[in-house]
Amino acid sequence: MKMLDFNRYTGQYDIESVIGGFESGALSDGDSVEVEGMIHRIRAMKSFAFFVLRTQRNLVQCVYEPKEGQKPVSEFNEEDSVRLRGKLVKDARSALGFEIHISDIKVLSSPAENLPIVINKKKLDCNVDIKLDYRPVSLRNPHERAALRIVDGIINAFRTFMHSEGFTEFVPPKIVSAGAEGGADMFEVDYFGEKALLNQSPQMYKQMMVGVFKKVFTVAPVFRAEKHSTTRHINEFEGLDFEMGFIDSFEDIMAVEARFMKYMFEYLSREYAPELSELGVALPEINDIPQFKFMEIKEIIAGEYNREFRNPNDLDPEEERLIGEYVMNKYSSPLVFITHYPSKKRPFYAMDDPEDPKYTLSFDLLLNGSEVTTGGQRIHDYNMQLEKINKRGMDAEEFKDFLMMHKYGMPPHGGLGIGLERLAMKLLGVDNIRTVTAFPRDIGRINP
Amino acid sequence: MKMLDFNRYTGQYDIESVIGGFESGALSDGDSVEVEGMIHRIRAMKSFAFFVLRTQRNLVQCVYEPKEGQKPVSEFNEEDSVRLRGKLVKDARSALGFEIHISDIKVLSSPAENLPIVINKKKLDCNVDIKLDYRPVSLRNPHERAALRIVDGIINAFRTFMHSEGFTEFVPPKIVSAGAEGGADMFEVDYFGEKALLNQSPQMYKQMMVGVFKKVFTVAPVFRAEKHSTTRHINEFEGLDFEMGFIDSFEDIMAVEARFMKYMFEYLSREYAPELSELGVALPEINDIPQFKFMEIKEIIAGEYNREFRNPNDLDPEEERLIGEYVMNKYSSPLVFITHYPSKKRPFYAMDDPEDPKYTLSFDLLLNGSEVTTGGQRIHDYNMQLEKINKRGMDAEEFKDFLMMHKYGMPPHGGLGIGLERLAMKLLGVDNIRTVTAFPRDIGRINP
Repeated sequence: MKMLDFNRYTGQYDIESVIGGFESGALSDGDSVEVEGMIHRIRAMKSFAFFVLRTQRNLVQCVYEPKEGQKPVSEFNEEDSVRLRGKLVKDARSALGFEIHISDIKVLSSPAENLPIVINKKKLDCNVDIKLDYRPVSLRNPHERAALRIVDGIINAFRTFMHSEGFTEFVPPKIVSAGAEGGADMFEVDYFGEKALLNQSPQMYKQMMVGVFKKVFTVAPVFRAEKHSTTRHINEFEGLDFEMGFIDSFEDIMAVEARFMKYMFEYLSREYAPELSELGVALPEINDIPQFKFMEIKEIIAGEYNREFRNPNDLDPEEERLIGEYVMNKYSSPLVFITHYPSKKRPFYAMDDPEDPKYTLSFDLLLNGSEVTTGGQRIHDYNMQLEKINKRGMDAEEFKDFLMMHKYGMPPHGGLGIGLERLAMKLLGVDNIRTVTAFPRDIGRINP
Repeated sequence: MKMLDFNRYTGQYDIESVIGGFESGALSDGDSVEVEGMIHRIRAMKSFAFFVLRTQRNLVQCVYEPKEGQKPVSEFNEEDSVRLRGKLVKDARSALGFEIHISDIKVLSSPAENLPIVINKKKLDCNVDIKLDYRPVSLRNPHERAALRIVDGIINAFRTFMHSEGFTEFVPPKIVSAGAEGGADMFEVDYFGEKALLNQSPQMYKQMMVGVFKKVFTVAPVFRAEKHSTTRHINEFEGLDFEMGFIDSFEDIMAVEARFMKYMFEYLSREYAPELSELGVALPEINDIPQFKFMEIKEIIAGEYNREFRNPNDLDPEEERLIGEYVMNKYSSPLVFITHYPSKKRPFYAMDDPEDPKYTLSFDLLLNGSEVTTGGQRIHDYNMQLEKINKRGMDAEEFKDFLMMHKYGMPPHGGLGIGLERLAMKLLGVDNIRTVTAFPRDIGRINP
């Protein structure tokens, strides 16, 4: 028996501490430092070599000039894991402002084979399928991994912000017996011999939890068995959802989301600057966000871009793109709320507008011309919900657990769902959602 | 078109602002306040009534004495959603130190039927199946919901702590083609006509991500198609996982977990005091945590409790319980690390102890006599991993995506997995894991 040492590991070889020390002045030219990482690139010169060390967030240029009895450069490999001691040398040309002249270097582990793709160029020079086939190594490329660091930042911003607004997180079930939106496009699971489904939305559960905690949120996977194969769709994605009770209007929900967007843009700009610059993205400050009624913006776009007025019940991708362009030009806002979507296109739990029941008290949020959020007020009255379920020819019995909360009392409430990967995709302006998904699942891929 | 109002909703009717104002002295006896919530209990007296208002975290006693033209008490129902204005009246007997004398009250929504179970007593007086059948309403009971608030706190503590230690969060896939531990006990999914599986662990993916970000964590569901039906098992649970590179020993991982436990115990005691007191739980301060080798503690327990020495490869639940008792008595610690588990009982990716390959460089963490974490160092060398896969008669081809990272270089690494619900169960000392699971899934239940 012995007592555990709480402090035996403190990330003492992380480059971050060296960077911090150099920026604060605690470390300066000539000081000795110890860091660890993987050898990202080797550039061998006559009597020495440049080892570019890949650490958590940075590339660090190191110079290795083997002395008597030291391992020759030829015995090192790219992707070796190493720990080294060296002298910090100021160098204005390097991104960090310094390089490290190695005095000792220890190889902790070496690859068995050379990489199948080149990951140490600025960008990967291969198509998306190759990138995904070799995901465990292609993500080691600094440009590729930067996109996933932003995803980490978005999740953290969402959770931090939701807590600051008094929301409680809960864990929704993934295996369910009926579909939140009626059961279409759901994956089937063999549940101990019985048929079950993979949840396509935490919708019903977050509404139930509003009766418990008033304001709730969840970060959870959702599954859509949709057959389309596009650059904007994956079949398993992460949902950032919240739901809130005692609202006076669906615009209360929009206000909370607007504050989240403002918070997230600022948080990422502050905490994820290295990744954003690697990706060449500058996030604007979020101040005014315009909002239009669905029919209003459709008419504006039809006029502005003289398109004929098609499909009065929906916005097609091209229309969304034009809305984004219009709003950016006229209000210089990357964000725009579209409200009052037609009832036909909204789910059975959506609250119709009492002033015009053909439309709902609902909204979408568009970011850079593409929908990233769908939300709205829900029906809280039992009889109203029962009536709408019946009117749609759905089986009320299948929704008895859902209707339980209405029957025993619910406050006026509503909420929204954000598609994490879609949000990251539009935020970074990448052309394929798989770029911001660590291990994407689509109709043709469940590997790695 | 109009510009969105960022501040139209600020939780202005949350009781929290009143409580804060009262504690800070900004609000005092006689001040007028506005709050919203659901009527948890009505106690009608001759000329007035007590309305106990249920808010996000509190019960607030309100007094309603209808004036001329005001709604009579008889027209109010328990579970009505209301917003009220009233006078704050100091009252030493009430938990909050005040009650509210209602001047105006507005009913926002009413239930269609009376509750099927009594939720406004201190504790629910029904068995676990009834509780679960009526989950949307049974969770409205303050004692029931308090357990789920603690779950919210644990998740938040984990993410906050992991970020503070420089870990990056990623989203692992849930639908996979092969099992992390070999494919036993996994649920089958019909994936567009092909057979797929629900992931039983993010293990392989978090190891892959160590090559990308060095230190990673994930909060994600895991699925186990195990047929047992016990009070300690559910078939869908939430995993808190982390994995770290460049470790000198598996004890580096234990040090990070020990700091997390210390952080979490302090965080919950500070931020979740109302829920802990509702549950009658006082969390100890975490200082020293003893660690024993597997064989060492087995012998100690066999001796201390003179049990015959059974099964040299595993600890049974009773043995774990006795270890918890022994460690609490001798070291007054609710936590204990058990290290060096037999290779036979550890997965194919576990690193064997070079000093005695019958055992692994692995550990479990027990909390109050039950395992809440399994972790250890992983094999990082390609040939060593390949050899162990072959030695176990597994098909290396099935693991080629996993082996890809070893082949192209990995630092020495390891990590752990914490079962969120198991941790909450042991932390709160509840006797059924379903108590800390919002919507538990087991062999007999996928509803609600």
